[in-house]
Amino acid sequence: MTLYTAATPNCYKVSVTLEELGLAYAVVKVDLAHGQQKTPDYLRINPNGRVPALVDDGFPIFESGAILVYLAEKTGLLMPSDVKGRSQVMQWLMFQMGGIGPMMAQANVFYRYFPEKIPAAIARYQGEGRRLFEVIDSHLASREFLAGDYSIADIANWCWIRTAKWSGIETDGLVNLQRWLATVAERPAVQRGIVIPEPPKSKDPDAEEAARLAEKARGMLEPGRREA
Amino acid sequence: MTLYTAATPNCYKVSVTLEELGLAYAVVKVDLAHGQQKTPDYLRINPNGRVPALVDDGFPIFESGAILVYLAEKTGLLMPSDVKGRSQVMQWLMFQMGGIGPMMAQANVFYRYFPEKIPAAIARYQGEGRRLFEVIDSHLASREFLAGDYSIADIANWCWIRTAKWSGIETDGLVNLQRWLATVAERPAVQRGIVIPEPPKSKDPDAEEAARLAEKARGMLEPGRREA
Repeated sequence: MTLYTAATPNCYKVSVTLEELGLAYAVVKVDLAHGQQKTPDYLRINPNGRVPALVDDGFPIFESGAILVYLAEKTGLLMPSDVKGRSQVMQWLMFQMGGIGPMMAQANVFYRYFPEKIPAAIARYQGEGRRLFEVIDSHLASREFLAGDYSIADIANWCWIRTAKWSGIETDGLVNLQRWLATVAERPAVQRGIVIPEPPKSKDPDAEEAARLAEKARGMLEPGRREA
Repeated sequence: MTLYTAATPNCYKVSVTLEELGLAYAVVKVDLAHGQQKTPDYLRINPNGRVPALVDDGFPIFESGAILVYLAEKTGLLMPSDVKGRSQVMQWLMFQMGGIGPMMAQANVFYRYFPEKIPAAIARYQGEGRRLFEVIDSHLASREFLAGDYSIADIANWCWIRTAKWSGIETDGLVNLQRWLATVAERPAVQRGIVIPEPPKSKDPDAEEAARLAEKARGMLEPGRREA
């Protein structure tokens, strides 16, 4: 298997899952700053021109959520096989794919990268992110993990929510969410997965570092976003 | 089975799928304008307080993408059972859940509902929506449907993309996407699904109607969004 990846939450979801499953894989770092994800060769693997992508024995898979399901099904691990247990994992995985991920990503865009500061847009996405965190916190009041045992649903949500500070979204008062964040963070496979393809520059960058990263990221926004 | 639903693209995804599968189901219309989706009774079905939700023999399922997968697996229809075919449907379903849906929804918010007009935010989401449409258009240049035969991936993406005009996103020049939009629109089950729980007020509302709908929708924005 070959993982095409970069240092982003959606990519960490896949490298953490691969590490949890103990699968052997080659790593190709995709150079987002130079648009490698938009080259014809890469678009044959991922027609959406984003990271991550996985190729298993010549079969290309894009969309991080689909890659996680593929790997769980391939191994029979990190997702139950009974109908209800399996659906509960799918529900919380979709919650991340359609909610946590897109809303935190929009918070990042307007809080960190956007050329103009638009307070109403920042407040919108930070507010929605906090609301989604509260949904998870309430859900975790009576359970250790999101859907039965530790699963790809935990991996998917955790890889985003651990970056709450970067999105400017507070987790104060969310004791169940904080406990879960800490539990998952202790797993050795998780610790290995989140430094692939390389360790993050900084988990809590100071203002100068943040400005530098934001400048770099601005150049990687999609064309439709640049036009904005 | 009971479907909790309203007149939104994510809800139509489920009613169309139920109609395609020929399953019997009861319909409960959730009154979004009066916050019925945030009541304790409803939150026991869907902890995220959104529509749709499905209850099958006492088992609640939230997140439209997860409901579609559940129904396809329950019946063995609208998704292949072989590993690769199944994954391709999952990939394009995730593309809708993480891309088409959230980006078109944000375009709607800033183009239609947001109290302030913020041209940069409108351009961002309409631009990203158009880019995603182009990905689909290229993909459909050599195939009739998104992933093998007609599947839940087509249903999911179609229920959003057919509302492109409401999002202010052009489909001009995207001949493959337009052909696919028309093909899916002709299916009798699709035509039945998109008038549940009720026919839309108008597919192409004039300015007065648009203003009225926007005013109504503004009141249904999430709290985090209202704060903005």
